[in-house]
Amino acid sequence: MAEKSRSVNLTRVSQWDDGNAERKDDYLAAEEPLEIRIGDQPLSVTMRTPGHDVELAAGFLFTEGLIQNREQILAIENVEPLTDDGVKRDNMMQAKLVADAAPDFAKMRRHFFASSSCGICGKASIDAVRSRLLSAPNPEFRVEAELLTSLPDVLRSSQDVFQRTGGLHAAALFDSSGGLLVVREDIGRHNAVDKVIGWALLDHRVPLGNAILLVSGRGGFEIVQKALVAGIPILASVSAPSSLAVQLARELRMTLVGFLRGRRFVIYSGEERIEGAA
Amino acid sequence: MAEKSRSVNLTRVSQWDDGNAERKDDYLAAEEPLEIRIGDQPLSVTMRTPGHDVELAAGFLFTEGLIQNREQILAIENVEPLTDDGVKRDNMMQAKLVADAAPDFAKMRRHFFASSSCGICGKASIDAVRSRLLSAPNPEFRVEAELLTSLPDVLRSSQDVFQRTGGLHAAALFDSSGGLLVVREDIGRHNAVDKVIGWALLDHRVPLGNAILLVSGRGGFEIVQKALVAGIPILASVSAPSSLAVQLARELRMTLVGFLRGRRFVIYSGEERIEGAA
Repeated sequence: MAEKSRSVNLTRVSQWDDGNAERKDDYLAAEEPLEIRIGDQPLSVTMRTPGHDVELAAGFLFTEGLIQNREQILAIENVEPLTDDGVKRDNMMQAKLVADAAPDFAKMRRHFFASSSCGICGKASIDAVRSRLLSAPNPEFRVEAELLTSLPDVLRSSQDVFQRTGGLHAAALFDSSGGLLVVREDIGRHNAVDKVIGWALLDHRVPLGNAILLVSGRGGFEIVQKALVAGIPILASVSAPSSLAVQLARELRMTLVGFLRGRRFVIYSGEERIEGAA
Repeated sequence: MAEKSRSVNLTRVSQWDDGNAERKDDYLAAEEPLEIRIGDQPLSVTMRTPGHDVELAAGFLFTEGLIQNREQILAIENVEPLTDDGVKRDNMMQAKLVADAAPDFAKMRRHFFASSSCGICGKASIDAVRSRLLSAPNPEFRVEAELLTSLPDVLRSSQDVFQRTGGLHAAALFDSSGGLLVVREDIGRHNAVDKVIGWALLDHRVPLGNAILLVSGRGGFEIVQKALVAGIPILASVSAPSSLAVQLARELRMTLVGFLRGRRFVIYSGEERIEGAA
């Protein structure tokens, strides 16, 4: 409940409906910046929906390649500096890592700011992901086509905030029989994915070799990358993937499903994992 | 046409439809990284849909506060390094600025990486935008409620790529009588906004004190920020805004409209600019 109230704000708005204007109260999805630090070193500022911030920080560090496993995390704690107005804010997360896991910040800045030496391109982006992965996600994992079509309804019925605000993305992990493991919402789709993967990492469930990741909206390159780092064999979205997302999924043998709506979907990569598909 | 073909890829997929599986060809929205440089200094890498890259770079530099006006741009050119496979790629844009406009890169890195000294929070984010603006957008600008409701159809009928891929965001500028000035599509909503603002900047139309910006999807903090920097008085989206977007629009006296669908919309801020609204 505490999480929920931080995720939603109530405000006064004007509604215009076919010529009739009225004042009413409306719910808004909350958005606040979150700074993630390793020790005292600021790493990233992301606009996110407050709630599950420890999971978000853990998932971000893991899916962006700053840590490789759960054991490298000693603690992830809320740092609460007093602001000018004396109010405590939950907008800074500090990760304490084991000594040999501390990343090379000089190298990281180059990574964030600069291109690869060959001139940046889709191929270089894919090679960069490949270089960080030990192997393709579980090649033995299989699900029935029918099971896939049941997942969006489960996701929707678990999305508390979206139903009130219409403004949030969601990500959910399902097990091989379609059971919901976790669902998280955020104003940023990549944050929702980091939250569910962070949840799994902290719960010692990574690699997620027998899980399906479902995301609202599109499946872009970054979402495929994050899922691959977590070892997820099947990524499904309710909308379209991008060209580079499809290329990455194909090269790294992940199953990528799009337009999962009603009793229909499209398989862009790895159809051998979907039983009953062509 | 050249732009269009770079924005879409054709690929072979498997479709599953209520138990019937078939192979077919499908269009994908293109996604490729773009590196933006000032001189030889790498500044940012963004995943974007190829096309209108000069506008994207110009809009990014302007809306992120790295330049303040059109006159600071001497040139924005495609740098085409040869890649390992010998193929030229259009994935690097180099801006040449007048001497006194070159930003302080050390300061910028702190801006991108670090928080404000008071502990980052929504208030600090809003203050940072306010400090960069001379004044609120045009307080005299007015549009009829009826005119607003006509805009989404114009946007949709101008979205070539979306109709084929279902995978792109769009942003469009309209004049005070609802005439379409420009529409751009991108896999990233912020990129679509940077492209239309970059178009306006390069065409000496900024500040856009008599324009309406319409975006597909949500209106988050970053979109409001970019529109404010360009002096746009009315921002409308077809979906929900975030709490921080509403807060920023209210404090800086921009008109923010959401859920613009059919003959209905919601005004979150600045309703005095909408004639016929409460």
